[in-house]
Amino acid sequence: MSYLSGLFSTAFERRFARTVSTDAQGRKITDLARDLLGAQGEVSGSTLARLILDQYARADAEGKKAFFAFLLNDLEIDPVEVVETLKDYKAAPSKRSYQAYATASEPKRQELLRRLNQVRGGTKRLVSLRQDLLSMMREDPKLGPLDVDFQHLFASWFNPGFLVLRRINWSSPAEILEKIIAYEAVHAIDSWDDLRRRLHPADRRCFAFFHPAMPDEPLIFVEVALTQGIPNSVQTLLADGRAPIEAEDADTAVFYSISNCQAGLAGISFGNSLIKQVVADLSRDLAALDTFVTLSPIPGLRRWLDQVQKLGHDTASIEALAAHYLLTAKRDDRLPADPVARFHLGNGAAVHAVHANADISDNGMRQSGGVMVNYLYDLSLIPTNHEHFVTEKTVAASTAVRRLSASVTPKS
Amino acid sequence: MSYLSGLFSTAFERRFARTVSTDAQGRKITDLARDLLGAQGEVSGSTLARLILDQYARADAEGKKAFFAFLLNDLEIDPVEVVETLKDYKAAPSKRSYQAYATASEPKRQELLRRLNQVRGGTKRLVSLRQDLLSMMREDPKLGPLDVDFQHLFASWFNPGFLVLRRINWSSPAEILEKIIAYEAVHAIDSWDDLRRRLHPADRRCFAFFHPAMPDEPLIFVEVALTQGIPNSVQTLLADGRAPIEAEDADTAVFYSISNCQAGLAGISFGNSLIKQVVADLSRDLAALDTFVTLSPIPGLRRWLDQVQKLGHDTASIEALAAHYLLTAKRDDRLPADPVARFHLGNGAAVHAVHANADISDNGMRQSGGVMVNYLYDLSLIPTNHEHFVTEKTVAASTAVRRLSASVTPKS
Amino acid sequence: MSYLSGLFSTAFERRFARTVSTDAQGRKITDLARDLLGAQGEVSGSTLARLILDQYARADAEGKKAFFAFLLNDLEIDPVEVVETLKDYKAAPSKRSYQAYATASEPKRQELLRRLNQVRGGTKRLVSLRQDLLSMMREDPKLGPLDVDFQHLFASWFNPGFLVLRRINWSSPAEILEKIIAYEAVHAIDSWDDLRRRLHPADRRCFAFFHPAMPDEPLIFVEVALTQGIPNSVQTLLADGRAPIEAEDADTAVFYSISNCQAGLAGISFGNSLIKQVVADLSRDLAALDTFVTLSPIPGLRRWLDQVQKLGHDTASIEALAAHYLLTAKRDDRLPADPVARFHLGNGAAVHAVHANADISDNGMRQSGGVMVNYLYDLSLIPTNHEHFVTEKTVAASTAVRRLSASVTPKS
Amino acid sequence: MSYLSGLFSTAFERRFARTVSTDAQGRKITDLARDLLGAQGEVSGSTLARLILDQYARADAEGKKAFFAFLLNDLEIDPVEVVETLKDYKAAPSKRSYQAYATASEPKRQELLRRLNQVRGGTKRLVSLRQDLLSMMREDPKLGPLDVDFQHLFASWFNPGFLVLRRINWSSPAEILEKIIAYEAVHAIDSWDDLRRRLHPADRRCFAFFHPAMPDEPLIFVEVALTQGIPNSVQTLLADGRAPIEAEDADTAVFYSISNCQAGLAGISFGNSLIKQVVADLSRDLAALDTFVTLSPIPGLRRWLDQVQKLGHDTASIEALAAHYLLTAKRDDRLPADPVARFHLGNGAAVHAVHANADISDNGMRQSGGVMVNYLYDLSLIPTNHEHFVTEKTVAASTAVRRLSASVTPKS
Repeated sequence: MSYLSGLFSTAFERRFARTVSTDAQGRKITDLARDLLGAQGEVSGSTLARLILDQYARADAEGKKAFFAFLLNDLEIDPVEVVETLKDYKAAPSKRSYQAYATASEPKRQELLRRLNQVRGGTKRLVSLRQDLLSMMREDPKLGPLDVDFQHLFASWFNPGFLVLRRINWSSPAEILEKIIAYEAVHAIDSWDDLRRRLHPADRRCFAFFHPAMPDEPLIFVEVALTQGIPNSVQTLLADGRAPIEAEDADTAVFYSISNCQAGLAGISFGNSLIKQVVADLSRDLAALDTFVTLSPIPGLRRWLDQVQKLGHDTASIEALAAHYLLTAKRDDRLPADPVARFHLGNGAAVHAVHANADISDNGMRQSGGVMVNYLYDLSLIPTNHEHFVTEKTVAASTAVRRLSASVTPKS
Repeated sequence: MSYLSGLFSTAFERRFARTVSTDAQGRKITDLARDLLGAQGEVSGSTLARLILDQYARADAEGKKAFFAFLLNDLEIDPVEVVETLKDYKAAPSKRSYQAYATASEPKRQELLRRLNQVRGGTKRLVSLRQDLLSMMREDPKLGPLDVDFQHLFASWFNPGFLVLRRINWSSPAEILEKIIAYEAVHAIDSWDDLRRRLHPADRRCFAFFHPAMPDEPLIFVEVALTQGIPNSVQTLLADGRAPIEAEDADTAVFYSISNCQAGLAGISFGNSLIKQVVADLSRDLAALDTFVTLSPIPGLRRWLDQVQKLGHDTASIEALAAHYLLTAKRDDRLPADPVARFHLGNGAAVHAVHANADISDNGMRQSGGVMVNYLYDLSLIPTNHEHFVTEKTVAASTAVRRLSASVTPKS
Repeated sequence: MSYLSGLFSTAFERRFARTVSTDAQGRKITDLARDLLGAQGEVSGSTLARLILDQYARADAEGKKAFFAFLLNDLEIDPVEVVETLKDYKAAPSKRSYQAYATASEPKRQELLRRLNQVRGGTKRLVSLRQDLLSMMREDPKLGPLDVDFQHLFASWFNPGFLVLRRINWSSPAEILEKIIAYEAVHAIDSWDDLRRRLHPADRRCFAFFHPAMPDEPLIFVEVALTQGIPNSVQTLLADGRAPIEAEDADTAVFYSISNCQAGLAGISFGNSLIKQVVADLSRDLAALDTFVTLSPIPGLRRWLDQVQKLGHDTASIEALAAHYLLTAKRDDRLPADPVARFHLGNGAAVHAVHANADISDNGMRQSGGVMVNYLYDLSLIPTNHEHFVTEKTVAASTAVRRLSASVTPKS
Repeated sequence: MSYLSGLFSTAFERRFARTVSTDAQGRKITDLARDLLGAQGEVSGSTLARLILDQYARADAEGKKAFFAFLLNDLEIDPVEVVETLKDYKAAPSKRSYQAYATASEPKRQELLRRLNQVRGGTKRLVSLRQDLLSMMREDPKLGPLDVDFQHLFASWFNPGFLVLRRINWSSPAEILEKIIAYEAVHAIDSWDDLRRRLHPADRRCFAFFHPAMPDEPLIFVEVALTQGIPNSVQTLLADGRAPIEAEDADTAVFYSISNCQAGLAGISFGNSLIKQVVADLSRDLAALDTFVTLSPIPGLRRWLDQVQKLGHDTASIEALAAHYLLTAKRDDRLPADPVARFHLGNGAAVHAVHANADISDNGMRQSGGVMVNYLYDLSLIPTNHEHFVTEKTVAASTAVRRLSASVTPKS
């Protein structure tokens, strides 16, 4: 990796870059972009692309907004051309007529993004460019169509088939580990010692997806605890000073934290693939494992409890309420209200058990009154669960959870 | 790499695959494809994709043709929908209306190909699938539009920014080296000993591009000789028993063979990037290098000579004729008739010198009467040469070659 | 590795070397050796060592002989000093007195060899130096004591704990593979295609030991076939065009060829460790394996048959004779006459079965009339077998082989 | 590495170990040691060795002492045998007679240590065993001879030719980095952030030696700052928030901290080789470097100052006193009193400059009143300096330092 990253920071590249267009550096980013789309693009592509990305990086908010406006408006499709090439193609289908339609129907900004991606390190910079875009879109929804193009390209580039699963452990490079500390989104890692406790013991695992073009940047990672039986609280799982077990003696793998790392890849889904590959990996190495389960937060519970004004304070009832929430609270589209539930149920998991006092950290109490949930990944049921969830919006759940939920009767 | 490739050939995958749809194996490939595009696709994607690719691999020519027909016709765009979503978008531009247009304007087969690519090893199988397509297209040009979609996706997936340059030498894995032997297209390698002579001496280099998803398959490779001065024949360059020089003593790097390896990637251009990266790499490691040049065949020369009935047999005149051919023989689009010339001139190189008796192998005599040409990559002139070539179709050449060409006067 | 090997071929080393002693290159190898043992040795050690090894490499047979004579005579122990320091030590044991004895009792040539070993690549050159020594010793047995010192040092440097087991397969570097071809001592590999057949199929394995200081040189390697049941001929095992089985389906691992690679390491035993580690490795990866067996030549059989004039030509009797030979033919020290038998029995294996027509190659017929033998490595019996073999010279054998041997009655 | 380390923690090894001697675990460590030296040793060696090392690890101080006593007394040379084999050898020199002498003259404990070293991980455990020995020797000097044997073997095993130089940076494994934090002996690293400041900036380097058999344990490491000009204080060098320079712009490499990591390797010298290899490595990569210098503590200064009662408190005089100390204060053997001075001067460096207020940390003030010294490694003078130092005990120094020292006149 370091081999590649060093490749172009060389005398050669500096020499070659100078010859591209001596005045390139003084030119407007939009002119450079047009060059990159034009004849120069083939041979001087990576140099032009670098200049554009450098100019973008130096731009202020106004400059970035202007660049996005250029992409949106100046590199837009021409509706007349779309319709005409479509007619021609349908009238006389051929490679040539279809090519004309294909070119016309796709905005030129997509081609520009593909060419910007030629640069060594370009992918990472485009991901961060989209992060800017997403944040500007909140104020300026008109940028929305531009994001459709980003998402389209990223879905293709970050295809699960291109991703590399790497185990993260105490032999991993410090530069990766410091990102794990930074990106952990569920149960904060507060120091290198804390990280060591998550990675180093024999009964802990961590896996991340990487893209070959961004070898130093984890995309998503999952933390796993190997246990005997299904755990009912994160405090026990992460207790300082606990005695680790031998990995070979574990019957259960607990996915207790999944964190996305790249804000610029929002909406590009890796979680499903990650879990499947990690399950495959663990199954192969540890023959005794037969249960794959999560220990997950219920981030929407507290708010829902407040709304429904059902303030149950004894242990029994908050678990029942949590079960009720997970099984019955829905969005307008009839999918579960809870985002974590949507993710795991969408992957084909089932609601397996709920536990009170399972995360008594400040954050855990605030979000869900300390309740957590196990989602069960039963390999033989995943496809069916998933299909019912997607087509009929059915929530798979254990009998116990189902009963618990049914025990909640609305106050009359 | 082997780690990854082994990942899914596991008990787990077999177990999981069985549960997807027990009767999946008996189902038609087209039904599986529809499932992959539908709700099942998200969770059972890689299993479905594998089943489809396996069925395709087992299919006979008729079966493959039928699958291509299905892609072409059943997963085609709906013109009415394209036009309507386009209207809606233009009437009220928004993320949602543009998304609808983007989905409609792209045929579903593209999404299918992207999902087939999720499988570990899928990229390689799709490349070989396109190889089938290209060969069928020769008889059935109606398949042309389908190839446009392949080319579109491959250009994005095989973006130069995603490729990895690796040096090939005598420490490279045998499984890579046997492919170098098989794919060498210019000067055949006739044995492992011959290969050793090309790779092992201190004054030889070989570099190949690889894609991370096809780590065992070189995409294109170039063989380089490090010399003192510009060589004028391939016999001398490859002479058995010659005395190698120290790499540090070379002033010239000669690109004497460039071979594409994947028929299924025809039309996806890597050569320009490869040469640029290799020049960068060599420049960094060997400070004394100041000349980058090819020793190239002129594959179209013999036929052109036959056509123009100018059968000059003494040394002087065949060089002059070759120069004349390279500088003046054109296709209908006014680009050079010779394909190798188009490639290097398109990259910004210049015709530097021509040499008679430079390749006296059977193949060399048959193609070009033994004449070879040096194309010069002068770093400071590449962008200009390229731009003139692309915009004005000008052929850059040395004064010597220019004079040589001018000395040829048509028989009156 | 290449990183390290390149480290000292640098401008720095050349510069530094020049300053060591400008006239060093013109000096005698023995003077350089004395310097290396003296005060200069600490700081200029690696440069002096390189000069010595270079001079040695350039020397002719006479020069090498002279250098060995120097080591033997000039760097010999001083018996008076040995005895005196011994007395002092015994009279007043202390760190200092013991150190004096330790230094005196060991000839200075050992320290010289250790200092020559400081050079990058020194180990390999010392191994080849001993190869010269072994060959000269045949004519000049007086060099024998010198070899005792070599053997002493090599046994320490090539301690099994320092060796690295690497799998050799079709992804191994060509430079390693060509050595496998060259060193195969049992069943010759006649081409790269033949090598591929030995390494590439799913039911084949090859493992070699390497020393970290000679990373490109296999020390010993073993070829393994994974089979169902114990094979009775090498022809079947190596048949061109045979259908490989899945490794997971094998119940037996057959060690059918073990080759030492370094003549200069004669007498340093790796075979026992190699087999043990390979058994461990295979056991871990392939749970179904329960039998570890060899298919071995009987190199001494033919000669023994000739001697005893028992020319049995039908199948039954040659197998019986072979069994008889393995169980009863002894050297003066009462160990088995057959060298391969000594090796495997010494490792704790047992004679399991003999097969006629098992190696019908020219070599196989010449050495042993085509008969081969399986030695069985039964994990639970290895220590006992070994101990009985070493202490009582007992040959462990199966009942069947024992009966077969007993069936041979001397002609009266 | 992890591949190897995992190799024997397998079911196989456990199975095999059980068969070695079912009652081995109950036996005395000394009996096991005798077995390891006897017939069993060859085949069951690594299992026996592991049992011995495990028993040793579990032993209390008494048990360890007893084991050392056993090594010292029971595995001692037999003086009679030494003298007799020596006579035989001298009377009739031959391989056999010399072998007999060689075996007799070396105590059996050396062979035992070599056999203990066969175990995967054995080297590391023997190093820690010697650490125990060194600490016990302080109270019980009779153990001294035992340490001579350890030192003898370690010098051979940790030969510079076997060591691997690895760069340590922010991509290094956390498990290595935490050892760097722990072992830094000169300028303490107080956190991971502090470590990052030492390793990550473009103008910092760190290199360590590793032994292949202890891949996770640095043996010694050096921290380097790349600077313009020679620095005169460690505060400036390590200042938080300082602006790094480009490595290519540096003309000077400053070795500002060298730390040995393994107490059990005391007396085995790596520092000289480390500095030489690092200089070679830096020279190759950074052409502009022309000065190699240390910034070193003067640990003996404060005590010497106290002794000589020359309490000079103004800046000028403490530098002069420091110069005087370095050039004139000697041990009984006429070598410099200061240990750091002995190390660098012994390597061929020269005292180049002294700086007051150069290390104002508590430790710096306590040891040397804040004074530091630059030792200069001038490649062209190293061999001469070294030779004069070793043979005549001459201290090489710059004219400036020499004058400074001469300015100090003893109080009459």
